[in-house]
Amino acid sequence: MGINVRVLFILLLLSLGMIFYIGASTSGIIVFVFTVCIISFLLSIYLTKWVLAKDEGPPEMISDAIRDGAEGFFRTQYGTISKMAMLLALLILCIYLFRSTTAEQEASGVGRSVTAFVTVTSFLLGALCSGAAGYVGMWVSVRANVRVSSAARRSAREALQIAVRSGGFSAMVVVGMAVMGIAILYAIFYVWLGVDSPVPLLLVGYGFGASFVALFAQLGGGIYTKAADVGADLVGKVERGIPEDDPRNPAVIADLVGDNVGDCAARGADLFESIAAEIISAMILGGTMSKRCKIEGNADPSGFILFPLVVHSFDLVISSIGVLSIRGTRKGSVKSPMEDPMAVLQKGYSITIVLAVLTFGASTRWMLYTEQAPSAWFSFALCGLVGIITAYAFVWISKYYTDYKYEPVRSLALASSTGHGTNIIAGVSLGLESTALPVLIISVAIVSAFWLGQNSGLVDESGKPIGGLFGTAVATMGMLSTAGYVLTMDMFGPIADNAGGIVEMSQQPESVREITDVLDAVGNTTKATTKGFAIGSAALASFLLFSAYMDEVSTFAQEPLTQVDIAIPEVFVGGLLGSMLIFLFSAWACSAVGKTAQEVVNEVRRQFIERPGIMEYKEKPDYGRCVAIVASASLREMIKPGALAIISPMVVGIVFRILGYCTGQPLLGAKVVAAMLMFATVSGILMALFLNTAGGAWDNAKKYIETGVLGGKGSDCHKAAVTGDTVGDPFKDTAGPSLHVLIKMLATITLVMAPIFL
Amino acid sequence: MGINVRVLFILLLLSLGMIFYIGASTSGIIVFVFTVCIISFLLSIYLTKWVLAKDEGPPEMISDAIRDGAEGFFRTQYGTISKMAMLLALLILCIYLFRSTTAEQEASGVGRSVTAFVTVTSFLLGALCSGAAGYVGMWVSVRANVRVSSAARRSAREALQIAVRSGGFSAMVVVGMAVMGIAILYAIFYVWLGVDSPVPLLLVGYGFGASFVALFAQLGGGIYTKAADVGADLVGKVERGIPEDDPRNPAVIADLVGDNVGDCAARGADLFESIAAEIISAMILGGTMSKRCKIEGNADPSGFILFPLVVHSFDLVISSIGVLSIRGTRKGSVKSPMEDPMAVLQKGYSITIVLAVLTFGASTRWMLYTEQAPSAWFSFALCGLVGIITAYAFVWISKYYTDYKYEPVRSLALASSTGHGTNIIAGVSLGLESTALPVLIISVAIVSAFWLGQNSGLVDESGKPIGGLFGTAVATMGMLSTAGYVLTMDMFGPIADNAGGIVEMSQQPESVREITDVLDAVGNTTKATTKGFAIGSAALASFLLFSAYMDEVSTFAQEPLTQVDIAIPEVFVGGLLGSMLIFLFSAWACSAVGKTAQEVVNEVRRQFIERPGIMEYKEKPDYGRCVAIVASASLREMIKPGALAIISPMVVGIVFRILGYCTGQPLLGAKVVAAMLMFATVSGILMALFLNTAGGAWDNAKKYIETGVLGGKGSDCHKAAVTGDTVGDPFKDTAGPSLHVLIKMLATITLVMAPIFL
Repeated sequence: MGINVRVLFILLLLSLGMIFYIGASTSGIIVFVFTVCIISFLLSIYLTKWVLAKDEGPPEMISDAIRDGAEGFFRTQYGTISKMAMLLALLILCIYLFRSTTAEQEASGVGRSVTAFVTVTSFLLGALCSGAAGYVGMWVSVRANVRVSSAARRSAREALQIAVRSGGFSAMVVVGMAVMGIAILYAIFYVWLGVDSPVPLLLVGYGFGASFVALFAQLGGGIYTKAADVGADLVGKVERGIPEDDPRNPAVIADLVGDNVGDCAARGADLFESIAAEIISAMILGGTMSKRCKIEGNADPSGFILFPLVVHSFDLVISSIGVLSIRGTRKGSVKSPMEDPMAVLQKGYSITIVLAVLTFGASTRWMLYTEQAPSAWFSFALCGLVGIITAYAFVWISKYYTDYKYEPVRSLALASSTGHGTNIIAGVSLGLESTALPVLIISVAIVSAFWLGQNSGLVDESGKPIGGLFGTAVATMGMLSTAGYVLTMDMFGPIADNAGGIVEMSQQPESVREITDVLDAVGNTTKATTKGFAIGSAALASFLLFSAYMDEVSTFAQEPLTQVDIAIPEVFVGGLLGSMLIFLFSAWACSAVGKTAQEVVNEVRRQFIERPGIMEYKEKPDYGRCVAIVASASLREMIKPGALAIISPMVVGIVFRILGYCTGQPLLGAKVVAAMLMFATVSGILMALFLNTAGGAWDNAKKYIETGVLGGKGSDCHKAAVTGDTVGDPFKDTAGPSLHVLIKMLATITLVMAPIFL
Repeated sequence: MGINVRVLFILLLLSLGMIFYIGASTSGIIVFVFTVCIISFLLSIYLTKWVLAKDEGPPEMISDAIRDGAEGFFRTQYGTISKMAMLLALLILCIYLFRSTTAEQEASGVGRSVTAFVTVTSFLLGALCSGAAGYVGMWVSVRANVRVSSAARRSAREALQIAVRSGGFSAMVVVGMAVMGIAILYAIFYVWLGVDSPVPLLLVGYGFGASFVALFAQLGGGIYTKAADVGADLVGKVERGIPEDDPRNPAVIADLVGDNVGDCAARGADLFESIAAEIISAMILGGTMSKRCKIEGNADPSGFILFPLVVHSFDLVISSIGVLSIRGTRKGSVKSPMEDPMAVLQKGYSITIVLAVLTFGASTRWMLYTEQAPSAWFSFALCGLVGIITAYAFVWISKYYTDYKYEPVRSLALASSTGHGTNIIAGVSLGLESTALPVLIISVAIVSAFWLGQNSGLVDESGKPIGGLFGTAVATMGMLSTAGYVLTMDMFGPIADNAGGIVEMSQQPESVREITDVLDAVGNTTKATTKGFAIGSAALASFLLFSAYMDEVSTFAQEPLTQVDIAIPEVFVGGLLGSMLIFLFSAWACSAVGKTAQEVVNEVRRQFIERPGIMEYKEKPDYGRCVAIVASASLREMIKPGALAIISPMVVGIVFRILGYCTGQPLLGAKVVAAMLMFATVSGILMALFLNTAGGAWDNAKKYIETGVLGGKGSDCHKAAVTGDTVGDPFKDTAGPSLHVLIKMLATITLVMAPIFL
């Protein structure tokens, strides 16, 4: 092993050197990006070491079973995913080897086979990085959980700090890897292929690979975590009246494993994909725009292309500062009552946001200043500000609808007092209603960022303003400019949840539980708010990829596709099918959880009946069987919705291409797919907002009742609230987050598969 | 009174004569339509007399309280609605008095003020007719219910026949009134204004009036019926364990009143509106098309305009035959086990469908034969066939997903055995999944009918085929060509439900209850299937009105609007807002039921506590208080969603009109509203399908368990199924049907309000 490490180290250094060399041959900006990424990788290594140095607590705090379960599932799941990815890679290769090339491509010397291999390679690299992002998320959470539990015996603040730093570790790795991967690919293409502008399009493969893996990771993990959770709760909490995460519940280990594979691994892959999709779409738009308005000469034309990489490099820096700003000890009196961990996290977020505004402004001045339009950078800085405000508003709205400090969750809790039925009706209406404000905000953001961009002064040859779409892209970047910190808060949730579970299982004293309970409740809120954030950025990114798709089709069809006219019946039908895809996908995702949960319920009921000693702590339940049932069922169930999402745009595109050929309508396939994509995006945003918010609100209405109001734990009102929570589980942790990924996956698959629609 | 009747009779004869005179001056076809309508009015008078001649049963069968409650609510509700309608009429008047007129209009001599007054008049007439349609539906059902109960003591078949004939009465009146109203308006405009082609556009006011009233009727009635139902069930069935419609339940009368005002009155208004919208949109398209391909000379140009009226005249004839084909006595052995009433209804439907195919073919040959394209009529006959097949497929799919003979409802029942939570998850997934097949079918129908129409041989001056949209219109007519019979089946449901309630309340022997239970279960299925039918036709009608809107805007803006390009950010935002409108509207409709139901629950609980004698039949509950609570709450709660639906397209149109003016984008307001309409239509179809099917499936899963499987009545499984049923109530009877109306209302309001977007 000694030699291996040394050899590895040398190899690493060598490849680093090579990467820097390539970067330096491309642009000084790339070197800057590389440097920041490597520094943040070093920081993340420091954070891991710091976390791992914490004690693992007394032997009764068992985390081995959780770790083994999570790692075992991860291996099997990613084994399946990688086989599917290989198949898809083969399909892409075939498609691209037989596609026609554009005149532009021929001229630039990038032929058919080069495009094919490059697209496939970036697809596989995207898939690999996404897998790594997921693995890192899970790796740290299965190690941090027990350390947080242990620290909770000493101090709430220390437990909080460990959870935050573990989340920070994976956030840095995920963001860093997305930025680094795209920067390396860009540099390689730039140096080796000697092309500049078509380069970004080659990156789409990377985005598609990332979203492909993220989709199945989120589906499989989401089904796993919620099937185990629902199954455990329905028998344990509802039927037997034992607390959550009680060691007597045979499904408790499966539930805790689920938090790691579903929430940590899957969300890592999801956010990785968000950032990748957003960077790529912004690079494509920046490239197209700088070419069309001929930014050359003194001004660096690559500024517009590389801008997203710089934004995310700063994101790494400021998010690290935000994470490190949360200290392990409190200032002031130690005797004061327990502080609100949400306030601590919020303070870190405020620091990050302020820094984001400053660095974003600086980046626009640095990268987007051009002599053609001297004030354009300022317009774009304002676009970024629009994005940052949008992100903040999204976070606030999610909090308003899911935190029990506010009216909506309180009236949901009140509705539980009249029974299960009214609780569900109230939750569904709350979720449906909660879509309104985010949609209004995203509408204002799109229109105003577009307007700012359009008035930035950038014009094409004919003097027409063309900066609008890039303005929207910059707003998206602004929204994601604090992605590192947001991901940290997101990862914090499942780690705290797991720590609470371990505390409960190892039957720690009440005071320790109180600490982890508070952390867990905060985790629920941060999870809900980051989902709002993720869906907002998915909406914007998808809108950008849509215009990239239009450009791509226009280029390859050698016929402009500038309009998608829904007054054409076939195009309208495409929209109808796109929206339907969202409903069907959500149906299958929810029913997968329902079916698997029913298997768990039956198994847990069987164990309670066959081993009556379990309830008196005399017999140990068979945790392993539940883990095995959930694992195999979720692998089986993730295939159907996943395959639907991958196959249906291809089928629709091909069918309407043929129909268009028969009825003499050129580009019909491409147009129908475009409408499908847009309607699916709109319906997907709304459905995801509905599912996430309803789920989060039900969860917190239950928690609110558990604080003692309306009869408290064990009352009929509480039972009704538990039903709501159970229903909300697949909504908020399976179908909802899978929809975020689906939206972006659809945007990238249509881009990559565009040749078969033409 | 004696003189009054005579005077009235003479006045009626006089106005009939005048109508016929005007009709004869317009076209022979109009005379035919008038004749058929009057014959079917006579038939419906015969049906009422026949129903009213049946005995009202023993005195313990109380229906007076139900009748008074229903009529009282109807009066108050329509009082409120008519006030709002007057306000809106004033607004329309102002808008049209200040709008600019087209050159074409000036030439035809129809000036600004004439257009304004005509639009307002047809709006008010539409509203009035819609109110009458609702009143007729309720009037007959509050009289038929007790007669069906009474007949159930004698024979199942007789009870079925009474329910069907009562339904048939209101169906004939509703369809006849829609056809007659539009025919009269057309004839008056034709004779007095002397215009031919712009006439249909003036009819849009009629459609808007009808949909405006239908929206509030459906909302108010839907909230009423389900709030009472949910409230009664939550305390009675779930908490106290007494049967449904038990006389001890203080909310039982409110529940039975609700069936009449929610299901009968509101569905009458809904179907009236569907038929009106469809006839008007088809007339507009027919008019535009026949003008563009210059069908003149020998061929009657009005054939294309009047075709929808002829189709619905035949609809009246064949539906009457279908209704009358259901006889009061069975052939064969009287001793054989009880027959399936569904099979009887289905037989009548089959007869109607076969006749529909024949008469539709004949009508196309009669009306659509033109020398320019001798085979066009045959293409359109095929379009009609597409529509009829689509209707049949929709009915079949709804049955598959909501009847407990099939897999979906059975697995939903199985999911109830693992608890409330899994029941809800399974129901939600079932509902979401059930959207897929109808969308596929409607997609195939739109594309194939468009293709058939396009290849009909009809071409414009430049030789371009233009029959496509009219083909889609003919398919819609085909779909609605059995509307009379379908509406009969729809009305049958609530009458049977009410009869069952009266039987239960008057504590009849078990054998009588069995008969009404079977009728009630069949009523649930027919209600669910006719909803599928209604949403399918709403989708098609909305698509047609959309193109009428595009034409209207093009005409008035004197600038062609042929495309709605969703790649423009503002237009995309319009789509986003349109879909959001559907989610928010559904949220408010559901929460209205939830809130009102909570009030009912508290009142019923209070009565049970304050009057403990109720449970032992020693004290009479205070039915009146529940009726009063539900009535006032539903009137209050219908305003918010209704106002949202009316106001938001206007606000969006005006805001983007101003934005377009500021940013130099002409017609932006009109385009954004168009996108809003299309996205709202698509999301509305999906959401309505989801809500209707999930609700119907939950209801029947409960009924399936009540047949004795999975533990039967009173088991935990049954309790979970009751929760699902409760949740499904506002889905399937408030939000779902309101969405049908909303979709069509949006299509008509955009047309009528178009002047303010330009």
